[in-house]
Amino acid sequence: MAHMAQQEGEDVARRAFKLKAFVEHLQECVSSIERCSKPVIAAVRGGCVGAGVDLICACDIRLCTHDAWFTVKEIDLGLAADLGTLQRLPRVCGNESWVRELAYTARRFDAREAYERGLVSAIEPTAEAMRDGALKLASVIASKSPVAVCGTKAALNYSRDHSVEDGLVMQRIWNMAALQSEDVGIAAAAAAHMGGRGKTQPTAFSKL
Amino acid sequence: MAHMAQQEGEDVARRAFKLKAFVEHLQECVSSIERCSKPVIAAVRGGCVGAGVDLICACDIRLCTHDAWFTVKEIDLGLAADLGTLQRLPRVCGNESWVRELAYTARRFDAREAYERGLVSAIEPTAEAMRDGALKLASVIASKSPVAVCGTKAALNYSRDHSVEDGLVMQRIWNMAALQSEDVGIAAAAAAHMGGRGKTQPTAFSKL
Amino acid sequence: MAHMAQQEGEDVARRAFKLKAFVEHLQECVSSIERCSKPVIAAVRGGCVGAGVDLICACDIRLCTHDAWFTVKEIDLGLAADLGTLQRLPRVCGNESWVRELAYTARRFDAREAYERGLVSAIEPTAEAMRDGALKLASVIASKSPVAVCGTKAALNYSRDHSVEDGLVMQRIWNMAALQSEDVGIAAAAAAHMGGRGKTQPTAFSKL
Amino acid sequence: MAHMAQQEGEDVARRAFKLKAFVEHLQECVSSIERCSKPVIAAVRGGCVGAGVDLICACDIRLCTHDAWFTVKEIDLGLAADLGTLQRLPRVCGNESWVRELAYTARRFDAREAYERGLVSAIEPTAEAMRDGALKLASVIASKSPVAVCGTKAALNYSRDHSVEDGLVMQRIWNMAALQSEDVGIAAAAAAHMGGRGKTQPTAFSKL
Amino acid sequence: MAHMAQQEGEDVARRAFKLKAFVEHLQECVSSIERCSKPVIAAVRGGCVGAGVDLICACDIRLCTHDAWFTVKEIDLGLAADLGTLQRLPRVCGNESWVRELAYTARRFDAREAYERGLVSAIEPTAEAMRDGALKLASVIASKSPVAVCGTKAALNYSRDHSVEDGLVMQRIWNMAALQSEDVGIAAAAAAHMGGRGKTQPTAFSKL
Amino acid sequence: MAHMAQQEGEDVARRAFKLKAFVEHLQECVSSIERCSKPVIAAVRGGCVGAGVDLICACDIRLCTHDAWFTVKEIDLGLAADLGTLQRLPRVCGNESWVRELAYTARRFDAREAYERGLVSAIEPTAEAMRDGALKLASVIASKSPVAVCGTKAALNYSRDHSVEDGLVMQRIWNMAALQSEDVGIAAAAAAHMGGRGKTQPTAFSKL
Repeated sequence: MAHMAQQEGEDVARRAFKLKAFVEHLQECVSSIERCSKPVIAAVRGGCVGAGVDLICACDIRLCTHDAWFTVKEIDLGLAADLGTLQRLPRVCGNESWVRELAYTARRFDAREAYERGLVSAIEPTAEAMRDGALKLASVIASKSPVAVCGTKAALNYSRDHSVEDGLVMQRIWNMAALQSEDVGIAAAAAAHMGGRGKTQPTAFSKL
Repeated sequence: MAHMAQQEGEDVARRAFKLKAFVEHLQECVSSIERCSKPVIAAVRGGCVGAGVDLICACDIRLCTHDAWFTVKEIDLGLAADLGTLQRLPRVCGNESWVRELAYTARRFDAREAYERGLVSAIEPTAEAMRDGALKLASVIASKSPVAVCGTKAALNYSRDHSVEDGLVMQRIWNMAALQSEDVGIAAAAAAHMGGRGKTQPTAFSKL
Repeated sequence: MAHMAQQEGEDVARRAFKLKAFVEHLQECVSSIERCSKPVIAAVRGGCVGAGVDLICACDIRLCTHDAWFTVKEIDLGLAADLGTLQRLPRVCGNESWVRELAYTARRFDAREAYERGLVSAIEPTAEAMRDGALKLASVIASKSPVAVCGTKAALNYSRDHSVEDGLVMQRIWNMAALQSEDVGIAAAAAAHMGGRGKTQPTAFSKL
Repeated sequence: MAHMAQQEGEDVARRAFKLKAFVEHLQECVSSIERCSKPVIAAVRGGCVGAGVDLICACDIRLCTHDAWFTVKEIDLGLAADLGTLQRLPRVCGNESWVRELAYTARRFDAREAYERGLVSAIEPTAEAMRDGALKLASVIASKSPVAVCGTKAALNYSRDHSVEDGLVMQRIWNMAALQSEDVGIAAAAAAHMGGRGKTQPTAFSKL
Repeated sequence: MAHMAQQEGEDVARRAFKLKAFVEHLQECVSSIERCSKPVIAAVRGGCVGAGVDLICACDIRLCTHDAWFTVKEIDLGLAADLGTLQRLPRVCGNESWVRELAYTARRFDAREAYERGLVSAIEPTAEAMRDGALKLASVIASKSPVAVCGTKAALNYSRDHSVEDGLVMQRIWNMAALQSEDVGIAAAAAAHMGGRGKTQPTAFSKL
Repeated sequence: MAHMAQQEGEDVARRAFKLKAFVEHLQECVSSIERCSKPVIAAVRGGCVGAGVDLICACDIRLCTHDAWFTVKEIDLGLAADLGTLQRLPRVCGNESWVRELAYTARRFDAREAYERGLVSAIEPTAEAMRDGALKLASVIASKSPVAVCGTKAALNYSRDHSVEDGLVMQRIWNMAALQSEDVGIAAAAAAHMGGRGKTQPTAFSKL
C-alpha cells in the first residue's frame, strides 16, 4: 500500500483510485466475517494489533488469554484505521469515550481492560483453556436450531445499523418463512421434554 | 403461533401473511410501552424469560431483586427473538458482544451480571424493597414538570434512532412550544427558592 | 430565554420562531467543539451541571478530579435538555438505561460512577494532577501525525451517525488522499527505527 | 382544532400536547390508506382541496374527471399542510419545484396539469367513465395473485423510504416465503397456456 | 482553487485538507439559500452554467426567459460538480436519467427542455416579463401568513431528506406551536369572509 | 427458481434460505451494472420484459427504438419483482404513481410513454440509428476526463440514497484527492483554448 501511495510521477487522482480499490478489497475481507451467516468466535492470545483489532471487531464473540494485549495501532503509522475498527469498536463496546482515547493514542491495553469494557466476553488462563472455552461455546451454539441461530445473527447485524422500528419490520418479514420451520416444533418438543430444569437435551436439527 | 405456522395443507405464503400480522400485533403490544408518553419502570423478581426480556427492554428503567435471573430464551424454541430484544437490548446495554453471546446460547444470567452490564439500574434485597424503590423513583419523577418529563422521554426515544444532528433539530422544534410552558417559570422559581442546596421542594405542576 | 419565552402579548408562533433561533445558536456553540477538526479533552473539577454536561459530551475525552460531581439538571428547570446531552450522552456511555434515570430525576452522581459508566476516562486526585494528566494526554496526541489524528476524529464523528457500511465507504474515499500523505512514510520509518519496543520516538510532522 | 388551539387561559405547552395528539390522530387516518395491504385507487371529480389532497396522495393510483381541480389550500388557512401532502406529493410526482409553487401559493390547478405532472394517471370525460375506469383497473389488479400484489405494494412502500440496497435486502427476505407460494406455479402455468400473446386468462387464486 | 490544488512541493494530504475547507465554504454559500427561512425565487436569463446551476437548484422556484440556456459544465473542467447540482437536481426534477446524461456530457439544454423536465416553473418571453412574473409570484407568497409560509418551507426541506413517517412526526411537533398562532384565526376569518369564491383578500399578518 | 421453491418434503425455512441466496446472487448480477465505475448505456429494441426492466434500471442512460415496448411482468408470474425494478424505477422516473400502475397491472407500454415518463432519454427510428446514437453518446462521455466522469457517477449513485447534506459531505471528501488531478489543469487549458464557443476540442486524458 505504501508503495502504491508513493509512486513517483503518477497523477494524484489515479493513485487515489487505485488506493480506494485496494482498501475496499481489504475491507471486504474483514466484512466477510461479519457477513458469514453463522456466528464467528475469535480467540486472542499474545498481541492483537492494528488489522488484528479490525478483524476481531467483525466477529460475534471474542475470548482471550490473560496475557493478551491490544492496540489500535494505525495512528502510529500515520493513518486513520480503515478496515472497520473506527466503525465497529464503538458499537461492540458501546463506549465512544474509551474508543477515542485508544484510537488517538495507540495506547496498549490488556486483557482485563478489554474485558471490563466489553471487548472480550471471557479471559482464560492459558491458550489451551481458551481453545477449549471457544470450542465449548461453539458446541453450545451448534446444538441449537441453525434456522434460529442464523436468523438471530441476521437480525443483530441488521438492527445494529437500522432504527428499532426498521429492525422490527425486518424481523416480522423474516419470520414469515422462519416460523414455518420444522425446527420450531422440534425445539418446542425438546423443551417440553426437559421441563423447567434449564438444561438442553441434544436435539438433531437438519443442516441448513 | 405454533398452530398457525404448522397448519396442514395451507399455502406457505398465506400462512406467512397470517404469521406476519400476528407478530406485528405482539410487537405493537410491547412497543406501546416504549411509546407511552410517560417513563415506565420495570421491577423484576424471579425469572425474566423470553417475552419477559422483550418487555423490560421497552421500559425506561429496570430494577430487580438479588435473586432475579434472565434468559434470552427464543433460540431454544427454534426461532429468533422477534418482539424487540434483538433490537433494543444492544441499545439498552451498549454492549453488542455480550448480547450476541446471550442470544446465541440462551445462557441464564443473574442480577449481578445484569447490573454490571447496565440492564438493570439497581438490585434490591427483597421484593418489598424493590417495590418501595420503584415507587420512590416514580415519585421523584412524578414531582417534576410533566412537560419536561414527557419532552425528555420523547427526545430520548427519537435520538436513539436518529443522528445527533437530527436529534438536535427535533429538540429545537419541540422546544418552540415547550419553552413557553408556565412550568419553566414555576420550576425556576422553585429552584431559586431552594438555593444551591440540591434539594427539590415539592412544586405543583398542572396535569398534562 | 425565560424572558423571551414569557413575553406578554406576543403571538405564540412568533415567540416560537425566536426561541428556535436562540436554541439553535446555543446548540451551534456546543456542536462547534464536536466539529473542531482536532480532538478536544475536557477536564472537570467541582460541579458539572446542565449546560456543563452538554458541553463535555461534545468533547472527545473527559477527565475529572475525584471530587467532581455531575447533574443532568434541566428537568428541574421544567424543560428537556436541549443542547445535546439527550443526544450525545447515550452514545458516549452506551448505556441508555443509566442515562434515562439521570435525565428523568436530575440525580447527582460522582466521579466514581462517571468513571464506571464510561463518561470519564480517568479520575485524578487533585486539580493539578488532572491538568498534568490532560496536558500529557494532549502531548501524546500532538506527537502523532495530524493527518492521521484529524482523519481519525472525522471518521469517528461520521461513523457514530451512519451505518457500518456507510462508514467504511467514507473511510476509503477519505483515504484516497490521506494515504498519499508524506506522514505515512515518516511514521513508518519512525516505527521501523523503534523496532517492536512499543515506544514512540518523537517524529516531526508538518503542521496541518 | 381552532377551538383547541385558541382556548383562553391554558398553558401553551399543555395546548401543544393536545394539538400534537389530535394531528397524530388525523395523520393516522390518512396513513391507514397507505398501510392498507391492497392497492387503493382514488377517483376525483370536482374540487380536491386541502385534506383531499392529503388523502389522494396516500393512495396508490389516482384518476380524475376532466373538470376536476386541485388546491394545496392549507397556506390560506395560516398553517403548513400537516396530513401528508408536503411529505408525499413530491414523491408521487417527483417534481419538487412544482410542489413548492403549489404549496406556497395555494394556486388552483386543473386535471390537465395534474396529469402532466403525474399526480393522476388518467383523465376521464365523465364521472361515469371514471368510475368504470377505476373499477376496470381494480378488476385487472384483483385478477392477479394477491400474494404478488400485496408483496409489490409492501415493496414499493418500503423502498420509497429506504436506500436501494435496503430495498433489495427487504425484497429477498420477503421472497423467502412468498416464492414458495402455490401462486407462482398457478401463474406460471396460466402464462404458459397463454403463450406470448400478451393476454391474461382468468386464473383462480385463493383469497389471502 | 486550481492554484490551491496544484501547488508544488506540498504534501498531498495537506493540500487535500485545504481543498476540503474551501469546497465546504463554497457549499455553505449555496446551501444558505436553501436554509433561508423564506422561499427564494430564481429568475434566469442568458446562460446558466456550472455554479449557476448549483445556485438555482438551491432555490425554491425557478423562472426563465425563453432564450435562457443551461449547462452542467463541471465535467468539462475535469471535475465532478461539487456545489450541489449532483445532489439537488435529481430531486428538483425527479428524473435521474435526464440528470445523468446532462452531468456526463455537459450538453447544453434550452428553456423548453428545462420546463418540460420541471427545472423551471414558467418561461417568460422577455426579461421584463420574467421580472414581473417573479415579483408577482413573490407578492402572492408575501400576502400569506409568514408562519405558514416558513413552516411549509421547513417541512419541504426536512421531508426531502427523511422518510414520510419521519416527516409526519416532525410536522406534528412543529405544529405544537404553529397551530397556536394568531395567524390561523386571521386567515380563517379572511377565508370565511371571501366565501367560496376562490380569491384571497389582502390580510395583514404581523412580521415574523 | 420455481424448482427450488416447490421441492417436496423439504423444510420451509431451509428452502427459504436457498431462495434468499439465489435471489441475492441474481440481484448482485444486476447491481454490478450500477456499481460499474463507468457510465453504462442501455439500448433497447423489441420487448423489454421482467428482468429486462430490472436490468435497464441499473444502467445510467437508456435509449430505445420507436417499436420497443416494456412490461413490468413479474406480477403475472405470481411474484413481486425482486431484482431492482421496484426499488430503482421510481427513482429513474420520479413518478411513483405511474410505477405503481405498471407494477400492479403488468400493463405493456411503448417507447413514446417510456420517453414521456423519462425512462428512456431518446427514441431512435431504427436499430442502426440507436446503435449509432448510443456509440456517439459513449464517445462524448469517453472524451471527458475519466477522473471527472467516474467521480460524477460515484456522486450520483451515493446521493440517490443519502440526504443532500450527506451527499455534500461525501463530495468534498472525494474532491480532496480528485481536485489534485492533472486532468483539472488539462481540461482548464483546453476550455480556455476553445474560448466561449461551446465546442469541446479532443483532449488526451490518461487512462484511469
